[in-house]
Amino acid sequence: MADVAASRAISVSPMAGGITAPAGFTSAALHCGIKAKAGALDLTVIAADGPASMAGIFTTNLAQAAPVLISKTHLEAARGTGRAIVVNSGCANACTGDEGLANATRMSEEVAAALGCQPEQVLVASTGVIGVALKMDRLVPGIQRACASLARGNGGEAARAIMTTDPFPKEHAVRVATPAGTFTIGAMAKGSGMIEPNMATMLGFITTDAQVSPAMLRRALVESARDTFNAITVDGECSTNDSLLAMASGASGVVIDDELYPALVEGLLAVSRPLALGIVRGGEGATKVIAVTVNHAASIDAARQVARTIANSPLVKTAVHGADPNWGRIVAAAGRSGVMFDMRRVTVRIGGILLFENGLPHDEAAPQAEEILKRETVDIEVSLGGGSAAATVWGCDLSAEYVRINGEYRT
Amino acid sequence: MADVAASRAISVSPMAGGITAPAGFTSAALHCGIKAKAGALDLTVIAADGPASMAGIFTTNLAQAAPVLISKTHLEAARGTGRAIVVNSGCANACTGDEGLANATRMSEEVAAALGCQPEQVLVASTGVIGVALKMDRLVPGIQRACASLARGNGGEAARAIMTTDPFPKEHAVRVATPAGTFTIGAMAKGSGMIEPNMATMLGFITTDAQVSPAMLRRALVESARDTFNAITVDGECSTNDSLLAMASGASGVVIDDELYPALVEGLLAVSRPLALGIVRGGEGATKVIAVTVNHAASIDAARQVARTIANSPLVKTAVHGADPNWGRIVAAAGRSGVMFDMRRVTVRIGGILLFENGLPHDEAAPQAEEILKRETVDIEVSLGGGSAAATVWGCDLSAEYVRINGEYRT
Repeated sequence: MADVAASRAISVSPMAGGITAPAGFTSAALHCGIKAKAGALDLTVIAADGPASMAGIFTTNLAQAAPVLISKTHLEAARGTGRAIVVNSGCANACTGDEGLANATRMSEEVAAALGCQPEQVLVASTGVIGVALKMDRLVPGIQRACASLARGNGGEAARAIMTTDPFPKEHAVRVATPAGTFTIGAMAKGSGMIEPNMATMLGFITTDAQVSPAMLRRALVESARDTFNAITVDGECSTNDSLLAMASGASGVVIDDELYPALVEGLLAVSRPLALGIVRGGEGATKVIAVTVNHAASIDAARQVARTIANSPLVKTAVHGADPNWGRIVAAAGRSGVMFDMRRVTVRIGGILLFENGLPHDEAAPQAEEILKRETVDIEVSLGGGSAAATVWGCDLSAEYVRINGEYRT
Repeated sequence: MADVAASRAISVSPMAGGITAPAGFTSAALHCGIKAKAGALDLTVIAADGPASMAGIFTTNLAQAAPVLISKTHLEAARGTGRAIVVNSGCANACTGDEGLANATRMSEEVAAALGCQPEQVLVASTGVIGVALKMDRLVPGIQRACASLARGNGGEAARAIMTTDPFPKEHAVRVATPAGTFTIGAMAKGSGMIEPNMATMLGFITTDAQVSPAMLRRALVESARDTFNAITVDGECSTNDSLLAMASGASGVVIDDELYPALVEGLLAVSRPLALGIVRGGEGATKVIAVTVNHAASIDAARQVARTIANSPLVKTAVHGADPNWGRIVAAAGRSGVMFDMRRVTVRIGGILLFENGLPHDEAAPQAEEILKRETVDIEVSLGGGSAAATVWGCDLSAEYVRINGEYRT
């Protein structure tokens, strides 16, 4: 009941800026020499003015990069209270053994020394080439310079400093008005690109001036990521460095309690959704976004599993790329997803056009669907005809350009 | 003990021919008009001279085509004893509702009428476009003509009649010499190609003149398929029509009992392996075969799951396509496979060249591995460093041609 009342009184509106839009945060971004290209931003530090609540979600890959391992350890050691995040692009610091762990720790130590806090209060993220050691002789002076030039309003540069070959920077901010006052959430993310074709990594960073406990921040982060950052796929690959980190400064004075919790989640969803979609739009070789919605499923997990199988199917992805309303591939992907349902009750729509219903084709509608498939965003809707759960997964098409980016190369 | 003794006395040698190489079988193949191209073989009937043991393995996709449903029903109704298999190419008879079931049944009835047996003694397979009804006015007279022209030595034409856009026909036969006498196994298969880009379907047919019960034939089929037809992947897609059917005529007089069972399995493996590899070699857009072996795993299932995740990884497939010794993608795919192991004990070799050992790279060996990656078959070997189980999965690279075949199209 409280949730509904709170939701009604909440309004979320977009605003300019990114991670320095909320009060209580500064950032700096610069080129320190990890990327070879002169002047290319490759380092950023995001700092809270004082102790902030922190939370993180990390890759489930067994091969976790050093910055992931160090950030998880630090979050636990500092019990979710911290001061800063340091991020480099151009080198993933993954598969680098003990030296990699020492280097990631050193990054946090340099920031801590400059800000006057403990290393455990600093989280670390890296993206770029795997299996290569960080050039600490460039990174350490870079971190010192960055910490000396922290300022409000630098969020835009930070969003560019975390890019590898993302085709465009991705940042977003929203203002959340509640009966208890207004707070702000800012965010930035990088997607599947590569510095030299290697590993695609998803990094996301969120700041807010709401006052919220680390535990509640983490709960809201997990909940909002489920339908945004965790509901996208470019090629089904999960990287060694994937991280989504959040910091709450409390500077707005708005205290997030159980009643305001939905407002925090709504705000997080609002900043995360365009960034997640931006990652898909900027996916390697992608020319179209595919939104796969599965409904009338027995459970949300079942709906998500079917949607993910369809969104990751190479035959579906190439069909969408070629503007081919090939419902047969969609039905076949759903059928091999591992979820049980009655195939005779399945309905498939592309862009709202009914192509398959209760086990039988409507091929007369194919020409209409073909026109819709030429658009930049393609909606695929599959009804499993049993249950009331639904889920959406966003993916992209598979083009020859994906093969070129990932295949025509040698380090 | 018996197994070992039997194995020692067994010799398997290749011979010419395919499904009519074993005694007791005839076949016929012709063009009846399902494929548009004049003269293109699109129908084949394989018949045993008398009642034969039969067994089948079918797609696990929930969307099962009419011929799959009918064949499963017939195998059960006739308790694994039958006379013939009828196969058409050019139309999958999938997602065709009740009409499709009636048409598949009709195919078996026409064969049964011509051979003087029950419809339940006839299995049916189809491959081609999904969601299109079979042209029965062409198929029925075609089946009648085929049954009238059954002959020994027609196996080669049968292997061509089941092709869709496979780049080459795939048939193989072996002679298995045992202390109890010699028997023959013949086989043919079609792989991932499409008549008009639609659904890739794997069909396999095996005949033998060994005398074996339906139950033992099925057990041997499942066992041999596990390391051949079920150990390959082109794009991770499982079709609506996948079927592997076997018939045993008993004409050799060699009775397969528990002692000779290993000889049957060895023979089945010997005919199946080159066909399975042929399917991968002829995979859509494939230029290279990738053999992924995972060893030192906790179980065979775990080894297989890691191998399959690597063989299906788009980043690994594109790296092999581009001759890039990118061990990082192999490690990351293994890490997201869902199997637990200690990443610090993992070793990766490409073509025998050690590239990653106990969590650290050997990039100095990359140039050597790059040369090996230019070959037509690439061996990837991953040791998980715990346990003694191993498995191999065969896949192929991902090329821009795959995208072209599956994307540039409209019916």
